[in-house]
Amino acid sequence: MSDKFDFNLNLRNLFSNTPRNFSDTEILYKNKRKTTYSKFFQKVNGLASGLSEIGVKQGDTVAVIDWDTDKYMEAYYAVPMMGAILHTVNIRYPPELIYYTMNHAEDKYVIVRDEFVPILEKNRQLFDFIKGWVVYSDDSETVSTSLGPNYQYNDIVKNEKYDFPDLDENTVATIFYTSGTTGLPKGVTFTHKNLFMHTLALANGINFAPINVGRTDNFLILVPMFHVHSWGIPYMALMNGNRYVLPGKYDVGTILELVKNENIKFSAMVPSILYMILSSPNLEEYREHLKGWKVVIGGAALPRGLALKAKSFGITTIGAYGLSETAPLLTIAIYNDALKKADEETKFNYSITTGIPVPMVNLRVIDKDMKDVPADGKSIGEIVVHSPWLTSGYFKDPQKTEELWRGGWLHTGDLAVIHQNGYISIVDREKDAVKSGGEFIPSLVLENAISELKGVGEVAVIGKPHEKWGERPVAFIVRSEPIKDGDVYDHLNKFMDVGRIQKWWIPDEIVFIDSMPKTSTGKADKKELRKLLK
Amino acid sequence: MSDKFDFNLNLRNLFSNTPRNFSDTEILYKNKRKTTYSKFFQKVNGLASGLSEIGVKQGDTVAVIDWDTDKYMEAYYAVPMMGAILHTVNIRYPPELIYYTMNHAEDKYVIVRDEFVPILEKNRQLFDFIKGWVVYSDDSETVSTSLGPNYQYNDIVKNEKYDFPDLDENTVATIFYTSGTTGLPKGVTFTHKNLFMHTLALANGINFAPINVGRTDNFLILVPMFHVHSWGIPYMALMNGNRYVLPGKYDVGTILELVKNENIKFSAMVPSILYMILSSPNLEEYREHLKGWKVVIGGAALPRGLALKAKSFGITTIGAYGLSETAPLLTIAIYNDALKKADEETKFNYSITTGIPVPMVNLRVIDKDMKDVPADGKSIGEIVVHSPWLTSGYFKDPQKTEELWRGGWLHTGDLAVIHQNGYISIVDREKDAVKSGGEFIPSLVLENAISELKGVGEVAVIGKPHEKWGERPVAFIVRSEPIKDGDVYDHLNKFMDVGRIQKWWIPDEIVFIDSMPKTSTGKADKKELRKLLK
Repeated sequence: MSDKFDFNLNLRNLFSNTPRNFSDTEILYKNKRKTTYSKFFQKVNGLASGLSEIGVKQGDTVAVIDWDTDKYMEAYYAVPMMGAILHTVNIRYPPELIYYTMNHAEDKYVIVRDEFVPILEKNRQLFDFIKGWVVYSDDSETVSTSLGPNYQYNDIVKNEKYDFPDLDENTVATIFYTSGTTGLPKGVTFTHKNLFMHTLALANGINFAPINVGRTDNFLILVPMFHVHSWGIPYMALMNGNRYVLPGKYDVGTILELVKNENIKFSAMVPSILYMILSSPNLEEYREHLKGWKVVIGGAALPRGLALKAKSFGITTIGAYGLSETAPLLTIAIYNDALKKADEETKFNYSITTGIPVPMVNLRVIDKDMKDVPADGKSIGEIVVHSPWLTSGYFKDPQKTEELWRGGWLHTGDLAVIHQNGYISIVDREKDAVKSGGEFIPSLVLENAISELKGVGEVAVIGKPHEKWGERPVAFIVRSEPIKDGDVYDHLNKFMDVGRIQKWWIPDEIVFIDSMPKTSTGKADKKELRKLLK
Repeated sequence: MSDKFDFNLNLRNLFSNTPRNFSDTEILYKNKRKTTYSKFFQKVNGLASGLSEIGVKQGDTVAVIDWDTDKYMEAYYAVPMMGAILHTVNIRYPPELIYYTMNHAEDKYVIVRDEFVPILEKNRQLFDFIKGWVVYSDDSETVSTSLGPNYQYNDIVKNEKYDFPDLDENTVATIFYTSGTTGLPKGVTFTHKNLFMHTLALANGINFAPINVGRTDNFLILVPMFHVHSWGIPYMALMNGNRYVLPGKYDVGTILELVKNENIKFSAMVPSILYMILSSPNLEEYREHLKGWKVVIGGAALPRGLALKAKSFGITTIGAYGLSETAPLLTIAIYNDALKKADEETKFNYSITTGIPVPMVNLRVIDKDMKDVPADGKSIGEIVVHSPWLTSGYFKDPQKTEELWRGGWLHTGDLAVIHQNGYISIVDREKDAVKSGGEFIPSLVLENAISELKGVGEVAVIGKPHEKWGERPVAFIVRSEPIKDGDVYDHLNKFMDVGRIQKWWIPDEIVFIDSMPKTSTGKADKKELRKLLK
């Protein structure tokens, strides 16, 4: 990057046109505040000026602790564009993990919403490495706190243009933490180039049937901003000028009101959020406003039962797949060529799979010797990938990084099959896989089948140690209507009869529970379920 | 590019999914041959194997001399992907310039269609630097030639997989020559990264109102493949799976038949091609098939009169702008935010301007001190740009390269105004500008005004030396109906009355000519017109 004609793929350069082209497009924070793109970028300049004045320098890490707000959005742009690193703190973690990740990330400054101040104050003696706290509130001009040194957000923000540097594209832009099935959270970092390329891929990837997300669709993203940059959508939306609504703390009532009042046409979320929305007791009142809503589901497989319920309200759901380590987009279940002449039923079935890789994602499904498994819809292998937006590895953890990138490919740890027509179906997390008699039982396929039984709210299948078979499957079910073991077995037998599942996959036990334990990102917590079994 | 997680932005990696996702999508060569994406990529492999076997190595330059054919398309992929450099020879040049550019580019191998063999044979003693000629014909299996050593295309193509290398993204992929207003043609080179990023920008840029080009639109591109990679569309189309029709040698009859029979919905061309099409005597027969055709016009300004005629057939035209040096896309006249509430007339007027920059293009209009001129729709300055797909400079010409990139920005040599709403209007080429009494007369604005008079076929305005004023404008007109000087002046006076042009801009002379002299890329040849004046 020395020649004058080189162009750094950094966030500043990605948005050089945005304020001019889409000057009047709105960014909303619930029904509380509203701004336009041109004013938003003025605020981004003002925030960068303010942060610079309190001491933030290139390379410093700035944490944000907030719900999904307009202030968070400003930090998404200001912090990386000034050359600092944005740490999106997982606010669903218990306080000790919040502390652990902030310490591990070497945070220097923190932007924090008033509600989160008390839990930080409780442990303020631990945070001696923080050089400045920037506090704010929705409800009052100032926030008083014993954390120090502290600054009021509104005081530091300047009304001036900030001269953002032309950063080397390999400068780290963001860090956040991801929980594995074991051990402490691991930090993943992304560079400006990673985010830049992901933005382009995302814009292209969601603009295909059946969702065809375009410029005039209003966005309401229900993937937390602390979680993989809300799947990168806050960057993609502003590149293309989409009206953007931020929901604050997630609440089904607020979400439904926003969908109605702001004419929302595109959203992204994990299945459990969609499940919550579609379980709302007053859903019927919103029926006419839900029609035409396009929803990308990721983070976990999209259960067929849930997709069918969405469809009955005129909502188009579509599966997508990625990891924290992959920024996240890898695949999306848009229609490819092979479905051109397919009937609606077939198309629907493929639209809830893992999908097909978006451009620039080189995706393979491999066996233990790193050889591709046949694309026959049956042979199970691990998904490995390469693309321009993958993390270079785990922060300060060379050993796990080495493992992640072994053989020059990023190992997802997800087990999948490739169908003849190019679609991929994930059948399990490698670590969640149930191995019975030396063979994999694809728990996601089983969960999917069970989810279609009326009365099943949520379901998760795990393996229980078994003397003879190694492991045998157990299904945990949260009921939405009173059903019994026998109903589930009758239902599964029907699936067996038509060949969708095999006889030896049928769970040995059905356990009904009152609520599904969840990870901080809203997936079924299989670690917790395993503890329950013991 | 040493770490294993780095991802080279090269063509091989851009198309890793294409053959699987869009396996059955068709590529057609007129009504002569038809293939599918999956077979096309097999042929690309076969061609690379064949070229490799006859001696083509990484870094070698391979020229192609052909009309727009499927064979050319194979070379577009095979040659750069194997690490060689594709030279797209301008077949509209006279033989001496063809020789000059092939010699200057240091071509080593040539792929050539039978029709072009005789002109090469005539000068075969000059081509001693060519190590191999690959010849083919549409009509016969073999082509005999005195050029040597020679190979039959069909003989060298293998039926095998070629192991394309993972090239460094800064490897040169293509070279072609561009004619300035003076001097010999200059060679411009583009790297894999340039083409990769341009493809992404293009896919995003054309997917906005009023054209909204999507996956299901069939493409017929009428920008020659020798000219700025057909504006990069052969790469963009295959990334997104668009059915692609290649027209061979341009012929209005064939074009209209293809639009009809292949249900063409998207095209790109220079204004003179659109003019030719809309002047076809049997155009009315195609009326129903022209409806819904979306046409991007570049290479020269889109005259309002031509856009209006297109509109009367239900064709949506839209302006775009770029140079050979910029790969080419810089701006496109899609609707931005400011036109959201505009009436149809206003929208139409902006859709034929130069447009707004596409994402990743940082575009400024500057004065002589490189300061931005005000965005007032009046202040004229030069367009300078930066983006990830600009040429690094002219091949073997450090001095002109230095001039092109002075001050760290690529100087387009185009004079323009920026309107308050962000749209740009080019008013002149710097070298074509008419300067009268120390002030610019924007010849494109004048040409546009004249083009709206019924009876004006084509028009070009140039400056004629004038003792008192320095220069005064002269208009050259090709008539489509019998009109006279007086009609033109009456027409221009009306434009003056409403303030669209100024009194002192009105040409001193009107010259009617039988046909417009054209450059090799189909623009009005103002150099020739200046000669005519003398």
